[in-house]
Amino acid sequence: MSSHFLGQSVKLENVYIASTGTTCGPLEYAGPLGSCFDKFFDDYHCGESSFEKAERKMLRDALDICLKREQMKYKDVELYIGGDLMNQITNVHYLAREIPKPFVGIYGACSSFCLSMGVASLMIEGGFIDNAISLVSSHNATAERQYRYPVEYGVQKKSTTTFTATGAVATLLTSQPTNVRIEAVTFGKVIDYSQEDPNDMGRAMAPAAYDTILSHFQDLKRSFKDYDLVVTGDLSTYGHKILKEMLQRHHIDVVHYNDCGCMLYDINKQEVFQGGSGCACSALVTMGHLYPLLKEKKYKRVLVVATGALLSPMMSAQKESIPCVAHAISLEVV
Amino acid sequence: MSSHFLGQSVKLENVYIASTGTTCGPLEYAGPLGSCFDKFFDDYHCGESSFEKAERKMLRDALDICLKREQMKYKDVELYIGGDLMNQITNVHYLAREIPKPFVGIYGACSSFCLSMGVASLMIEGGFIDNAISLVSSHNATAERQYRYPVEYGVQKKSTTTFTATGAVATLLTSQPTNVRIEAVTFGKVIDYSQEDPNDMGRAMAPAAYDTILSHFQDLKRSFKDYDLVVTGDLSTYGHKILKEMLQRHHIDVVHYNDCGCMLYDINKQEVFQGGSGCACSALVTMGHLYPLLKEKKYKRVLVVATGALLSPMMSAQKESIPCVAHAISLEVV
Repeated sequence: MSSHFLGQSVKLENVYIASTGTTCGPLEYAGPLGSCFDKFFDDYHCGESSFEKAERKMLRDALDICLKREQMKYKDVELYIGGDLMNQITNVHYLAREIPKPFVGIYGACSSFCLSMGVASLMIEGGFIDNAISLVSSHNATAERQYRYPVEYGVQKKSTTTFTATGAVATLLTSQPTNVRIEAVTFGKVIDYSQEDPNDMGRAMAPAAYDTILSHFQDLKRSFKDYDLVVTGDLSTYGHKILKEMLQRHHIDVVHYNDCGCMLYDINKQEVFQGGSGCACSALVTMGHLYPLLKEKKYKRVLVVATGALLSPMMSAQKESIPCVAHAISLEVV
Repeated sequence: MSSHFLGQSVKLENVYIASTGTTCGPLEYAGPLGSCFDKFFDDYHCGESSFEKAERKMLRDALDICLKREQMKYKDVELYIGGDLMNQITNVHYLAREIPKPFVGIYGACSSFCLSMGVASLMIEGGFIDNAISLVSSHNATAERQYRYPVEYGVQKKSTTTFTATGAVATLLTSQPTNVRIEAVTFGKVIDYSQEDPNDMGRAMAPAAYDTILSHFQDLKRSFKDYDLVVTGDLSTYGHKILKEMLQRHHIDVVHYNDCGCMLYDINKQEVFQGGSGCACSALVTMGHLYPLLKEKKYKRVLVVATGALLSPMMSAQKESIPCVAHAISLEVV
């Protein structure tokens, strides 16, 4: 019998990580976690004729690496769940043409990693499927030209900006025990604190991360001390500080906390403004860096709170503020 | 204990429809099913300052009507799942700012109705939640200017075009028995038959509908005869004919089959080209028209196969073909 939602969270008993595949771009490879990733591309085109095709190539390679590790083929996976930042979620959907299995498209902006992992986990925990693939990607050049301006324009950036990570991550979840499991999932509410500046996403997303972390702790009667590490998705330096202040103002002891956007790059040396963002940011840090540390038992339990800003350029043009969401998964050594 | 996937399908035991709310625009109200819908707007702005805000108003009204029928408030629903056609799925997400509960964003283009109903159904069947709201919308003017040209331009249309329906539908699903249930769900594969013309979506989507209908029948050992009615989402006249031919070529006896895009409008009298499309098309026909007929026991079992074309204007500009998907739900009188 599956557990019922406790508030916004579910405790899981039967969901394990079997394998992963991670691909990244040149800046992610040059960053402090570069050696963690399975494959890197030294240019943004990845040998393809458009940035969009490049992102799709990174996705395909991540999926192939993930399945090859388990000697599995596309058809051996029961369900694929994924999303990316492109309008109409075209990267995962165009790749899905090559996949002969059902595909569920999700969208939570940069929180899509935890959203897809969360939905896939419930499908396994519910006994509907024995395995699933979560697929997410982002690409700096595709995201820049869609949300802001093509990188070729060389538009000056505001200092509050974050840098969309280039990378793709496939994760195979299964009901068969392995050494790392997803032990809890928390689905986030959409939160809007009336922040309107699309060049300052960390500030907009911090309240959503705050809400999800608090809900997770309340639902499961936990605190930061119950985790060896809590990471947010892509608040980066400003948002990360704001979140810490929000938590401390509510007398919450913030320990073992970091942000994937601050971990993926060397913020002092690499030109990434306030740090990394994008679906690939939390996904690369979690599956490339944290998952191996869990496998080696260097961490016992880690909470990943992927954050997403749900704006669109049209909504910003219509002077709307930025609604945000954060979804969380808790990974634990078995 | 929940059922396991049979191929792409799941049989359900514990998922019921408790309530619905349907809102529509002027052309849908003037159509043959107009009197079925809870509320209509006689202009495309719905009293708002932009078409996007108008779509959001239709969504909010649909949700309010749905919950009012059950004397419930936003906070009484455990989980909201929804999507729309706007880039970054902004209509449902911007509405979700007003909802103090977790929100799962999905995207399957015009198949989003069955996708959100399917995912919500599994969450209830799995025992994770006792109720959920599925939320979908589309608006002719918001979709036209995003995918094609602003309606104000008065661009000439190809005769193969379909007309995006204006409307919103909220559906409350629950584990508490009512007189109509979701008895099966089939999740679709992404199918691409190399059709490249974004003005001829029915033709592109027919193979995806074909694949999902066949999978559904094979998985559950059924045929058209097991349903009082089978409807596709928005293939409209051309796609509807193509699907019929594809099925008949494979010696499948096609009976009790219709397409929501052909049912929502009077195609001979209303200016909708080949018929309706959009997330609201299958949702309005299903929840406004078919659900009451099921409640009155005029139908015993109906299969709804919502179809979606997963293209984006950028992919069309890059000369890519149109991947499509179809997700199905089977509604049955208890």
